[in-house]
Amino acid sequence: MAAKIGLGNIVIAQSGGPTMVINASLAGAVAVAMRLCEEGLAGRILGARHGVEGLLKGDYVDLTKLSSARLAALLQTPSSALGSCRHKPDANDCRAIFEEFRRREVSCFLYIGGNDSADAARIIADEAEKEDYPLVVYHIPKTIDNDLRSCDHTPGYGSAANFVARAFIGDDLDNRALGGVKIDIVMGRDAGFLTAAAALARREKGDGPHLIYLPEVPFTEEKFVADVKAAMKKHGRCVVAVSEGIRGKDGVPIGAKLGSGEKDSHGNVQMSGTGALGDHLAGILRAKAGVKRVRADTFGYLQRSFPDLQSETDVMEAAQAGGQAVVFACKAICGRRGFPSKGTVGIQRCKGARYRVKYVALPIADAAKYTRSMPEEFIAKSGNDVTKAFLDYAAPLVGKLPKVEKLF
Amino acid sequence: MAAKIGLGNIVIAQSGGPTMVINASLAGAVAVAMRLCEEGLAGRILGARHGVEGLLKGDYVDLTKLSSARLAALLQTPSSALGSCRHKPDANDCRAIFEEFRRREVSCFLYIGGNDSADAARIIADEAEKEDYPLVVYHIPKTIDNDLRSCDHTPGYGSAANFVARAFIGDDLDNRALGGVKIDIVMGRDAGFLTAAAALARREKGDGPHLIYLPEVPFTEEKFVADVKAAMKKHGRCVVAVSEGIRGKDGVPIGAKLGSGEKDSHGNVQMSGTGALGDHLAGILRAKAGVKRVRADTFGYLQRSFPDLQSETDVMEAAQAGGQAVVFACKAICGRRGFPSKGTVGIQRCKGARYRVKYVALPIADAAKYTRSMPEEFIAKSGNDVTKAFLDYAAPLVGKLPKVEKLF
Repeated sequence: MAAKIGLGNIVIAQSGGPTMVINASLAGAVAVAMRLCEEGLAGRILGARHGVEGLLKGDYVDLTKLSSARLAALLQTPSSALGSCRHKPDANDCRAIFEEFRRREVSCFLYIGGNDSADAARIIADEAEKEDYPLVVYHIPKTIDNDLRSCDHTPGYGSAANFVARAFIGDDLDNRALGGVKIDIVMGRDAGFLTAAAALARREKGDGPHLIYLPEVPFTEEKFVADVKAAMKKHGRCVVAVSEGIRGKDGVPIGAKLGSGEKDSHGNVQMSGTGALGDHLAGILRAKAGVKRVRADTFGYLQRSFPDLQSETDVMEAAQAGGQAVVFACKAICGRRGFPSKGTVGIQRCKGARYRVKYVALPIADAAKYTRSMPEEFIAKSGNDVTKAFLDYAAPLVGKLPKVEKLF
Repeated sequence: MAAKIGLGNIVIAQSGGPTMVINASLAGAVAVAMRLCEEGLAGRILGARHGVEGLLKGDYVDLTKLSSARLAALLQTPSSALGSCRHKPDANDCRAIFEEFRRREVSCFLYIGGNDSADAARIIADEAEKEDYPLVVYHIPKTIDNDLRSCDHTPGYGSAANFVARAFIGDDLDNRALGGVKIDIVMGRDAGFLTAAAALARREKGDGPHLIYLPEVPFTEEKFVADVKAAMKKHGRCVVAVSEGIRGKDGVPIGAKLGSGEKDSHGNVQMSGTGALGDHLAGILRAKAGVKRVRADTFGYLQRSFPDLQSETDVMEAAQAGGQAVVFACKAICGRRGFPSKGTVGIQRCKGARYRVKYVALPIADAAKYTRSMPEEFIAKSGNDVTKAFLDYAAPLVGKLPKVEKLF
């Protein structure tokens, strides 16, 4: 039964690459929606399996009565518990979706995802308007890439950055033990935020990563070889953080040229899930930098799926962003000013010494389609490192990192 | 000043691939040796930097007065804090080493490492005998590969296995969300123990890894493709654990054929630090198994270096093995029966329902050079999985694994 006022029945789904806290956003949204259900302001909470694909098939899981124990367990569970997809809906898809929505008396749709998922949600919202289907749509931000224009930082980033920083703490010690050059490829299609987090691994002078390459700075073989030679001379070893999205002066990602060329429905070329870029760069160094021991690892999907490593701040904010989406949708249905019926949850950092954020309702277009890059003040002038401004920005998001001991 | 009785001055060093607990063995040995120093039974404790290379150069760190706080921090610090190497000493090297040892009045040498490091220690011990240099040599076992013949299991294995099992818990959820085939390459040059630990990630029916390929079972493309097709049919998705050491019917590791061909001084071909094997297998599936979405990750050095993930059992046993080496060496110097002057610390599992181990002094040759493979009873008849006997063997070594929540 749909409620007569409030949100009616609510559909929630997850989309795009999973993160370590996308289930926390789901749990946060469901927890708040449950309260509305208890108060008769909402009917049922339905989870669509595999995002838009589940909407199309009417493939739903009823979440209305999820126990608190299971909600709490979701906070600690990486990946998308409802399943995910990378499907960009068209007008025909939307008509099929609305048929399902009509049958189930759905008046609110919440979509947790990145910029492409926000765009998918925007398409659904626009088509609903055209079709006169009364629907409030809210996008809940997530992405380990941290590249949404609507957020100071994005849920999912802090935990992935924690993984990356930890990985570099350990890998730098490994490189100290056996020497040579170690290249680590970090996720981040268009933005360098996650790769930049490698810099948080440094605690003492001489700690790696010694070089950081971001998609924002055009990459050339010549500079790379010269940089590594200089680092080897200075430190006797070298740890390099490289974004999977580095691109040459032509703007084309180098990894995309080496991969299978596979594209998703949003037009993104596959870059993760292959070691090709790391191996390519290792080959360059073996041939041109005169370094014998060169190793390359690609952190791959572990960065977004490794269990039990969530940053506490990230989990909390992901859950709050989910909850806020329900609150904002409720206000939009009630016609409250400043709460668009096609919205996204923006996360803004408050000014002041103590780290705090606030959540704001923004038009969904603010999050959709386009991404943001690392701002210039986060990138060192050398083009192969980050600045203190970046470290100050990232540290509160990432949470605690382990201490290690050195003997020399 | 060397002590007149007891161990004289003690040299300790680390060798081979680092692990998450090789520093725990160092800390354990140093802690026990410190007690001997306090009682006048030993003089100084010297750490050689970068194993045999430090011995050759006389490059030492004095560990005699290391604070308890730093010893405790070492228990939690992955990688080899003294630095490592893969140097196989010859008779000339040994003469140079003994010159340094004479100058520093060293009568006890402890070497923490795997089978190649045990062999290096054995060479040094044999040459000392030939040269009439009075030296007690003890090897302290470590290797994430778990392939020492002298141990039920090897310090370093449990923690690496914990990383691998966790990684598969998360990656299996990631694969549930987005589907297709995911291949994960796990370390293990000759033995499949670490790859087999992926099976600990399974908690419920349908959980991955769905297929496990070990170096002990000859790998064929035909069976691989057929296995994956069958798993895709059954589960609609497929997570595959593959050892970096898988080999064809010719016995040659497939990864070795794809890599740089680089060899260390023990004759081992480089296999880690490249994504080539994963990419090769993904290519096979794209071409022959009719699966569109295939991704491959190579866990790489993170398996041995990731901080703060140590298995408690592993840390404790690594530290105890280090301590026992000092005790055994002391007894060998005193001429106690059953304590060889060229020894290794064997770890034996006690019979009975409760997991317990005991440490025994064994001839160093028992650990040196040759490795052991997974016993037949640990490998499923299908050749693409492990048995319950393996899970029972591995579970107590690996420690706690995180719980996750599913919605369908």
